[in-house]
Amino acid sequence: MSEPELSPAVVVGAGLIGASIGRALTVAGVEVHLTDRVPSHAVVAATIGAGTTDPVDPADVRLVVVAVPPAALVRVVAKTLRTYPNATVTDVGSVKSKVLDELWEIDGLDLGRYVGSHPMAGTQHTGPLTASPTLFTDRTWVIAPHRASSPDATADVRRLAEVCGATIVTFDVADHDRAVATVSHVPYIMSVLTAGQLLDHTAEDLRLAGPGVRDVTRVAASDPGLWRQIIAANAGAVRVELEQISARLGELLADLDDEEAVERILAEGRDGTRVLPGKHGLAPADFGQVVVELPDTPGSLSRLFRDVDALGVNVEDLDIDHDPVRQVGYLAISVVWDQVEELTRRIREAGWTVRGG
Amino acid sequence: MSEPELSPAVVVGAGLIGASIGRALTVAGVEVHLTDRVPSHAVVAATIGAGTTDPVDPADVRLVVVAVPPAALVRVVAKTLRTYPNATVTDVGSVKSKVLDELWEIDGLDLGRYVGSHPMAGTQHTGPLTASPTLFTDRTWVIAPHRASSPDATADVRRLAEVCGATIVTFDVADHDRAVATVSHVPYIMSVLTAGQLLDHTAEDLRLAGPGVRDVTRVAASDPGLWRQIIAANAGAVRVELEQISARLGELLADLDDEEAVERILAEGRDGTRVLPGKHGLAPADFGQVVVELPDTPGSLSRLFRDVDALGVNVEDLDIDHDPVRQVGYLAISVVWDQVEELTRRIREAGWTVRGG
Repeated sequence: MSEPELSPAVVVGAGLIGASIGRALTVAGVEVHLTDRVPSHAVVAATIGAGTTDPVDPADVRLVVVAVPPAALVRVVAKTLRTYPNATVTDVGSVKSKVLDELWEIDGLDLGRYVGSHPMAGTQHTGPLTASPTLFTDRTWVIAPHRASSPDATADVRRLAEVCGATIVTFDVADHDRAVATVSHVPYIMSVLTAGQLLDHTAEDLRLAGPGVRDVTRVAASDPGLWRQIIAANAGAVRVELEQISARLGELLADLDDEEAVERILAEGRDGTRVLPGKHGLAPADFGQVVVELPDTPGSLSRLFRDVDALGVNVEDLDIDHDPVRQVGYLAISVVWDQVEELTRRIREAGWTVRGG
Repeated sequence: MSEPELSPAVVVGAGLIGASIGRALTVAGVEVHLTDRVPSHAVVAATIGAGTTDPVDPADVRLVVVAVPPAALVRVVAKTLRTYPNATVTDVGSVKSKVLDELWEIDGLDLGRYVGSHPMAGTQHTGPLTASPTLFTDRTWVIAPHRASSPDATADVRRLAEVCGATIVTFDVADHDRAVATVSHVPYIMSVLTAGQLLDHTAEDLRLAGPGVRDVTRVAASDPGLWRQIIAANAGAVRVELEQISARLGELLADLDDEEAVERILAEGRDGTRVLPGKHGLAPADFGQVVVELPDTPGSLSRLFRDVDALGVNVEDLDIDHDPVRQVGYLAISVVWDQVEELTRRIREAGWTVRGG
């Protein structure tokens, strides 16, 4: 796929997202110029095929992708619109409204050339060395045009997402921010509030922790320095959601001695887990688990999967639960319900200890 | 290990926990008599080696294990103390204070023979068919004697936990309940409140969901009918924790526009995740991840682990992230940091696509 219409392009910010986009554009035949606040990052990204650090005539540039931290977005997008007078400019920030509102307040910007976007892909790694041209393949890429975005600029950003192999979804700016508040920012904050409570407890108390609290608090381990920027950028939508949760928590506290009322709130949460799309559109309830005891030594997983493989079942999901004391783990293998019984029987025949045996 | 001192024993409630204890005691040579509100459950448990449904002379019984749902505990423990006049009685409920307080209010009970306990083991499966004599092997088993528990009764319950192969921890009743509120009941409620927010959103919005919200909301999928009993039984400790969280949430809402203040709260959550004991006492930070693309077909896991095995690395943890659209998954393999680079290189050499490539 050759994309002369997007060439030459500039990627501002050579981290995981910027360098991955640079690599995908380069593969598609686009001439990519990389810049970064830290020049050595751009050099590193260039060495892994994300583009070049050579200068480019600003007037020639067709597309600029701004891939910088949330707090820098407004400044860099504004500067970019001025520096590259003929380019479509997009950003890859995870929040859209606030940046747009602040851009509107800046005099003399040609905002017709700006279309925000939000590629939904891995953020657990950072830096250009983890960049991949397939990072966005079949991932959701939100395009969020605003009222003044030109059709040409919107088409350019669609083309960018297509070149990266992503699945395109168009969102209204405010709708996008409300949605990510619910499915990302607020769950992170709830995880943080839960994890914060652990600090008051002794190591003895924490020995009683099981897999539930580990799941709930996992995302709270992420970088507070990045998250403060995301939350600041989406404070409006986050506030609305948190106020609803705060009210619900107040209700729960008021009704804590009323088992029926408590169960209604618990059942709502259970129902909420059922509307989340499962793997390939299947609900989690479509799978059953076979829990196998696993000696914690090199090779045990390999032997187990050789045996599972011989049965021709399709493993839908895996979860390892390590015993914090004993040197074993429990591997929960999720398969469609029809296969649970046979998998259990045949795994046992192969000499493994299956929970429930 | 033969345990004539605990023989004959009665297990009341032939679900996963009761039947597993019955099997462990039977293996140790204890004569076990099973009862259940639903007689057929006891019969099923007997057929898998958890004991017998034959009658026993109540005066002979040495130990009674009460393994019934939380709401039935007080009634069944009280009845059991009267029915078996010479037996030590324990329960396996996940909350201890409220049951004890209510037992004290019942006239004429010989509470010296009662010692509460709480074996920490799998509750994701239910029913006797999933019972295993090794369910408690090396798992934590909390013993929570009260001020009137006799030393002999406490020793009997210790012996029970030993026979089941568990690691014994002694807790004060109130301390236990505070600890499980923090590490289990409150994380579940936070998961429920987060999941409940999803109900207000469209399927389009929920397409933006990533692994974070799935982790946070996973435990909210559990049975509200069981959880309402657990929360009712531990309402005091749960209330204290939830009020602290509610206050913290109020602070966060008040300070939402103050990035420094927000970051302080986020950093506390991050610190909280670091005090949770990791696998075998290692902190999560001791591991790095290698993320491998995995075709979603039978056999791919087997082939991958054969290759991983050939390298002799010890897989510390696994996490599958399925792309909801594309027919591939990403398997995150956690290994000690020293092995990340070599594993990445050699997995690539074996023909796999590693994220970051």
